[in-house]
Amino acid sequence: MARPNVLEVKRVASIGGGPIGAGWAAHFLARGYDVTGYLHAMGEESIYRRILDTAWVSLTALGLAPGASLARLTLTDDLDRAVADAEFVQESAPERLELKQKLYERLGTIVPSGVIIASSTSGLMMSDIQVLCPTPERTVIGHPFNPPYLLPLVEIVGGNKTSPDAVMWARDFYAHAGKAPLVMKKEIPGFVATRLQEALWREALHMVANGEATPEDIDVALMNGPAPRLTIQGQCMAFHVACGEGGMATNLDQFGPALKLPWTRLVAPELTKELRDRMVDGCNEMAQGRHFEDMAAERDRAIVGVLKAVRAARSGG
Amino acid sequence: MARPNVLEVKRVASIGGGPIGAGWAAHFLARGYDVTGYLHAMGEESIYRRILDTAWVSLTALGLAPGASLARLTLTDDLDRAVADAEFVQESAPERLELKQKLYERLGTIVPSGVIIASSTSGLMMSDIQVLCPTPERTVIGHPFNPPYLLPLVEIVGGNKTSPDAVMWARDFYAHAGKAPLVMKKEIPGFVATRLQEALWREALHMVANGEATPEDIDVALMNGPAPRLTIQGQCMAFHVACGEGGMATNLDQFGPALKLPWTRLVAPELTKELRDRMVDGCNEMAQGRHFEDMAAERDRAIVGVLKAVRAARSGG
Repeated sequence: MARPNVLEVKRVASIGGGPIGAGWAAHFLARGYDVTGYLHAMGEESIYRRILDTAWVSLTALGLAPGASLARLTLTDDLDRAVADAEFVQESAPERLELKQKLYERLGTIVPSGVIIASSTSGLMMSDIQVLCPTPERTVIGHPFNPPYLLPLVEIVGGNKTSPDAVMWARDFYAHAGKAPLVMKKEIPGFVATRLQEALWREALHMVANGEATPEDIDVALMNGPAPRLTIQGQCMAFHVACGEGGMATNLDQFGPALKLPWTRLVAPELTKELRDRMVDGCNEMAQGRHFEDMAAERDRAIVGVLKAVRAARSGG
Repeated sequence: MARPNVLEVKRVASIGGGPIGAGWAAHFLARGYDVTGYLHAMGEESIYRRILDTAWVSLTALGLAPGASLARLTLTDDLDRAVADAEFVQESAPERLELKQKLYERLGTIVPSGVIIASSTSGLMMSDIQVLCPTPERTVIGHPFNPPYLLPLVEIVGGNKTSPDAVMWARDFYAHAGKAPLVMKKEIPGFVATRLQEALWREALHMVANGEATPEDIDVALMNGPAPRLTIQGQCMAFHVACGEGGMATNLDQFGPALKLPWTRLVAPELTKELRDRMVDGCNEMAQGRHFEDMAAERDRAIVGVLKAVRAARSGG
């Protein structure tokens, strides 16, 4: 039952021949791991390698780990062989509960004891996936954001039968492997990022349905408004810094009443003292004592770079 | 009543001594305009100039227009003088309806005939602001995103009494002045971008209120997940490109049922045939016949640049 040392993991198995499975393989190869990719059928190999080649261009531009090589990939359609010497398993099989349940029933036996098995699922709960698994304590969600070889976020949460130490191991391993892990407090549908994205998406659909905006309007607004800033400050710190000395406290105390306005189809929660304090304390913790002008300057530097990067990408550079 | 030629505008008046008024002044100065800044009191000058100096660092890094100079700014607390020879007026006075109504009553007389007056308001409607204005046909909303000297978005919409040609003039002028104008179809609270941001913000507050996430979780999720991709593809094109050959049609036909899932507190609209077609047609128009692989490659190039820019900003570079 001993877990591998996160710092010493050498071989990762990536299960699934689609863009997510191939994307994970590309990421781990770029970080210098040996990767075994499991394909449902070897006929998937050519598309898989094409995804890898595409991803490699970007991963090379971002900087490869020493020794990283596409040659360190082994592909197989033999599941037992794929996981036999894996020290971590990333599962990206199709999003069907019954299929995943049967897969975890088998993985629970054939994956070496103690090795963590993480699912890329975006829509299923680990409590449901792990019901037939004989060793469910080492199964977790490790949900990436598309494209998984570029976007750093991995949302991690266990199911009812998952051991807390498996969640901590996954967090440490992903962080060591160059990802931005986010351990969730509760198993909620959509995790955090997809849930936020879904709120935005539904509001967008309402606007298009009502003739208030076109899809292009939605995209122009997002790309040229919130997006460049959100790359350096999430919505909480964006408001915290924009409110100067007063920070999030000023934001909530001053604009709290505006939460009653019908600005979106999403009804706001009651702004209780407790919620206010959680928001304010959370922002102060993130700021770690930094002055708002310092954080605003960092924001501006990032936005300048982001705008230049987007400009260069659009002109093919 | 003749409007100035958008290509020949030389002098802009920016009304308001706060961060938005100063931010607009910085933007127009950087684009090579003469700017007259109106301050409520000259005591606001030192903070105003500090905002300008800060903004100028970023604007210089992005590239100044030929002849652009901070020396081309004139500051005054005389409103008549501020607008006397302006060919465009950007108003960023405090967000109080009564105050703006009285201001527009006066601006409607003293601003040269035919010159467009645009309000930076984020929360008020032009139909309400323009009620006392003797020349309301040339008043529009021109809502920026903070910081206004960096983020390109300007949302434009008229009020009941606004002439359609004033809206078109504002769109053409902002585009010429280096902004990304978005003309709105209807006067709705929050316009497009703030409305989308507000849906996201309310969902975030719900999650914090329910103990599902901390403010830091929200920000980590946004910065490392959706944000880098949203700088190059809004949510519509992100889904369109992620679905490969099938595009938005595949996205809606396949994941449409998931709109019924309780992924957020925002209830989704009915996915009618009409809404589906608007989304699909809108994405196809944006794609302009480009292959999804080409757009995915552009996306990846942008994300690589964005991640590098954020990394550099964080390390003080």
